[in-house]
Amino acid sequence: MLNQVADLDRVFHALADPGRRLMVERLSQGPASVSELGKPLAMSLAAVVQHVQVLEASGLVRSQKVGRTRTCRVNAAALRSAESWISERRSLWERRLDRLGDYLAETADAPDDDPAGPPDGPQSRIHDQSEENR
Amino acid sequence: MLNQVADLDRVFHALADPGRRLMVERLSQGPASVSELGKPLAMSLAAVVQHVQVLEASGLVRSQKVGRTRTCRVNAAALRSAESWISERRSLWERRLDRLGDYLAETADAPDDDPAGPPDGPQSRIHDQSEENR
Repeated sequence: MLNQVADLDRVFHALADPGRRLMVERLSQGPASVSELGKPLAMSLAAVVQHVQVLEASGLVRSQKVGRTRTCRVNAAALRSAESWISERRSLWERRLDRLGDYLAETADAPDDDPAGPPDGPQSRIHDQSEENR
Repeated sequence: MLNQVADLDRVFHALADPGRRLMVERLSQGPASVSELGKPLAMSLAAVVQHVQVLEASGLVRSQKVGRTRTCRVNAAALRSAESWISERRSLWERRLDRLGDYLAETADAPDDDPAGPPDGPQSRIHDQSEENR
């Protein structure tokens, strides 16, 4: 679990840079050497290598050196773990919105029919009375 | 396009912190006040507010102040944009792997039947001869 948390930290950090996302985009089209990854980017080879190292540390990219050429490929499993994390939270929230929508549609049809009140949906916290400074 | 790039920078940066991911997890279960978001985290209210501001700047969270309470909710559209970016790259890469798998299966059946050679799949770069230091 701790490892998984650390991995998501690294994966999302790696994806937060536009140059590194461009590298992942390039690699999703097929393996590439480090120098090929750098071509579309206005940066030194040393900077490209550093970005590749961040991508490798996150698990998003794997590389292999054969002779003098280091070839990089995407690791789909790391992309999938980040995608799943986001998609689970998004769908949880959207199911809540759907339930609230159903409730509102039902109460519009029969306003006095539901003594239980609304589910704990998106609007239910607006009247929270706790004190808070911001 | 530039805006979209900046947004993904901010969204992925926001998700790279375990405390902020915990806040998004909490909010995916329903809206919450800033102080509620801070409860499971061992940090000051000021630190919680800063994290909420990073989440708001990324568009992942929207908030509304009614009386003394600021209520936060997840913005599914921002989650969806990050999810789509990842899922498009992942599926592009997986389709390449599938094509390579098909090719290998075909050539295993009929080894001399495909004079065109393999598609530009995951293995095709290993023999790249370009010089490269790392």
